[in-house]
Amino acid sequence: MSQKNANSGYKGHALEVIRKAHAEIGDVVRITKQNEVYEGILIPRSEYGDQKHIIIKMKSGYNVGVKITPTTKIEKIGEGAKPAFVAPPQPKQDETLPKVTILSTGGTIASRVDYRTGGVRPALTAGDLYSVVPELSHIARIDAQILFSLFSENIQATHWTQTAKTVAEQISAGIDGVVVAHGTDTMAYTAAALSFALQNLPVPVVLVGSQRSADRPSSDAATNLVGAVTVAAKAPFAEVVLAMHETPSDTAIAVHRGTKVRKCHTSRRDTFKSVNASPIARVQDQKIIMQTDDYKKRNAENKLILKPEFDEKVALIKFYPSMNPEIIEWYLEKGYKGLILEGTGLGHVSKNCYEPLKEAIENDVVVGMCSQCIWGRVNMNVYDTGRDLQALGVVSLEDMLSETALVKLMWIFGQTSDPEEAKKLLKTNIVGELSPRTLPDTLSNE
Amino acid sequence: MSQKNANSGYKGHALEVIRKAHAEIGDVVRITKQNEVYEGILIPRSEYGDQKHIIIKMKSGYNVGVKITPTTKIEKIGEGAKPAFVAPPQPKQDETLPKVTILSTGGTIASRVDYRTGGVRPALTAGDLYSVVPELSHIARIDAQILFSLFSENIQATHWTQTAKTVAEQISAGIDGVVVAHGTDTMAYTAAALSFALQNLPVPVVLVGSQRSADRPSSDAATNLVGAVTVAAKAPFAEVVLAMHETPSDTAIAVHRGTKVRKCHTSRRDTFKSVNASPIARVQDQKIIMQTDDYKKRNAENKLILKPEFDEKVALIKFYPSMNPEIIEWYLEKGYKGLILEGTGLGHVSKNCYEPLKEAIENDVVVGMCSQCIWGRVNMNVYDTGRDLQALGVVSLEDMLSETALVKLMWIFGQTSDPEEAKKLLKTNIVGELSPRTLPDTLSNE
Repeated sequence: MSQKNANSGYKGHALEVIRKAHAEIGDVVRITKQNEVYEGILIPRSEYGDQKHIIIKMKSGYNVGVKITPTTKIEKIGEGAKPAFVAPPQPKQDETLPKVTILSTGGTIASRVDYRTGGVRPALTAGDLYSVVPELSHIARIDAQILFSLFSENIQATHWTQTAKTVAEQISAGIDGVVVAHGTDTMAYTAAALSFALQNLPVPVVLVGSQRSADRPSSDAATNLVGAVTVAAKAPFAEVVLAMHETPSDTAIAVHRGTKVRKCHTSRRDTFKSVNASPIARVQDQKIIMQTDDYKKRNAENKLILKPEFDEKVALIKFYPSMNPEIIEWYLEKGYKGLILEGTGLGHVSKNCYEPLKEAIENDVVVGMCSQCIWGRVNMNVYDTGRDLQALGVVSLEDMLSETALVKLMWIFGQTSDPEEAKKLLKTNIVGELSPRTLPDTLSNE
Repeated sequence: MSQKNANSGYKGHALEVIRKAHAEIGDVVRITKQNEVYEGILIPRSEYGDQKHIIIKMKSGYNVGVKITPTTKIEKIGEGAKPAFVAPPQPKQDETLPKVTILSTGGTIASRVDYRTGGVRPALTAGDLYSVVPELSHIARIDAQILFSLFSENIQATHWTQTAKTVAEQISAGIDGVVVAHGTDTMAYTAAALSFALQNLPVPVVLVGSQRSADRPSSDAATNLVGAVTVAAKAPFAEVVLAMHETPSDTAIAVHRGTKVRKCHTSRRDTFKSVNASPIARVQDQKIIMQTDDYKKRNAENKLILKPEFDEKVALIKFYPSMNPEIIEWYLEKGYKGLILEGTGLGHVSKNCYEPLKEAIENDVVVGMCSQCIWGRVNMNVYDTGRDLQALGVVSLEDMLSETALVKLMWIFGQTSDPEEAKKLLKTNIVGELSPRTLPDTLSNE
């Protein structure tokens, strides 16, 4: 048995069948069962996989799990393109173009090579990129770096810190813009995190991902990358933004403010939407069309303020009927410093949460209220419930997304340990996350 | 000091000022501070309120909290319309019309009288309704009952049970349709709950609410009520549905399936949206326009199956970066039977959740996966993470809303204590909550 198969993730019956066929990961195999035939490249199996399926990558680009039964036949019909791990030659770079660094953190957009051979190779070099998206070399001089190789559901606050620091290094080195390639699952959380960690930016920082891997005909990777690099190289603004398909078709890219964006569909290419805000810009045919006047201008003179620390002792609680209020006590016991409530409607939770919230707040836990409605603005002055919660010390977070509020409070406790200061910062708009209503001091819309 | 002021919620300085003016709740007062003057009806204060504000209801219908300073003057300028609590005379009912029962559970739609006087009077009699919405008497013969008077954030599983039982009684009594008036905050959760609790319905059960109280010019209460009563009286379908404004304007009502609807805006009148489904119908000019052929037909012969029990030992966990996986262990220790994960993207959580999830599942906790994207379908066959989670025993809940999945699992454990049976039911479409994709047995889109 080759070393490859040992690490292939296959075990038991499936491994036995593969071994008998003298096949290895990357080989082309044919699987015959009754009157069905499947051909494709043998790819590795998840370590938690069962012993009954073999996974092959078909010509269509789709992966298929074929169930092995006693009558299933498997034969090796070709040597696979074994991972070469040799970068193609780099094109000559045009010295007049802006310099853009692409930092790869993982995700579908950085996983093209894995899919071709089945080998896990999350690398993303400038050469790789140029070979997939040749037009990039006409937009910018690109330097690509692998920061880490993670599905984005595994990205945590420590990775936000590391990413922010690396972006800051690139900016000190005089780059004209930074692109961060990222899995789409938690890309909006990271966008919010970088927005708080990287203030007074001289150049844009653009998060980009892909909903379909680059080896599938419907992939959005190339269009998204071109859009993101265009923004990093040329945009008139200098903020943390997220660039992805604007519609299900391939015509335009929407550029969303990092604190105002949310993933709103499991699979559509236009999954990201600006919430309670318009996108900052659109990119069409490599042209940037601004959608608002309200943005921070690109200015090479701006001195970056790097504040990359986050404190993980902050939790998000989505409220629901019959929720156990003891969960609030549990977080208090665990030493949590902040809680973001995703309440109902205008910002409500049930009465039986009042006492544990009171206790938490009296013990210096900062509690903020957002709405699980997602769209609209929390208004805790309309009903008794909201007024009661405010009287307990719950902070109304206006039109802030709950995900952004969570990240912001983690970031705040990376800067201060004073709960009063934390509360003040939470209510203050720092990087476009909150647009407060202007009401005369003595008036509240009760 | 009158008994009224004792229960007014005012205390300290605010109470003193009110007492000095010899004003009572319901009186018309004028508050003068520097060059600002406010006039309106004095209304009660939340028990958690501060001592610095007095709340009055202005002519505009808005409530205003005025801050009391040492120079603030307050005077009583009129006797308020004290709550009469006398129902207006009932109109003569047309005996040829269908019979509809309106069950009031509370919320803005049932709070009209409170707002007029500030007195808490959540009553909703047929007489009240006819006086506000006279056209109702031309649509149906209405009987109105107060079930409870709760802001919907305080509605719990026990209230779902009670509501389902009362609906069943009304149906046994031969009613042609039931309307449930409900606060909008958790109305979608209740709609899902009643969908599972009331199966094989002979007539429609229609939830309705209002985003603006009936005494405000922009109120949606009348339009929504007319729409809901029209559906209850005449609709060709017999399902649990939710009827609310279709757009911000007043032209039409959308009728959503109870398991497929979500509150998506904190304040807009068209806040409810069907997710991963089209609305069942629209109501325009009291006409019902069907939007789908896929519905359960109204049929007086149908024998209602009442299954009103729910088990509260089920929790919803919204995943986020740096979430503490110990929360899963806590629920296991607390004897929870089911967990619904609101994962990222296609249905993912971070790797450090695997061990606690494995332990929970080995201890017979049923774990289902939905997506925090809200729109789209969970697909746990695309990435390693999803396959790993399935291998651990996490159940993929396809296109089911997380809120519906939570309610469904509470309902399932009201019917069975067998985790295998529970898992089977969770994956089975019962009342339109799930539309499974049809894939050949041996194929998965990996």
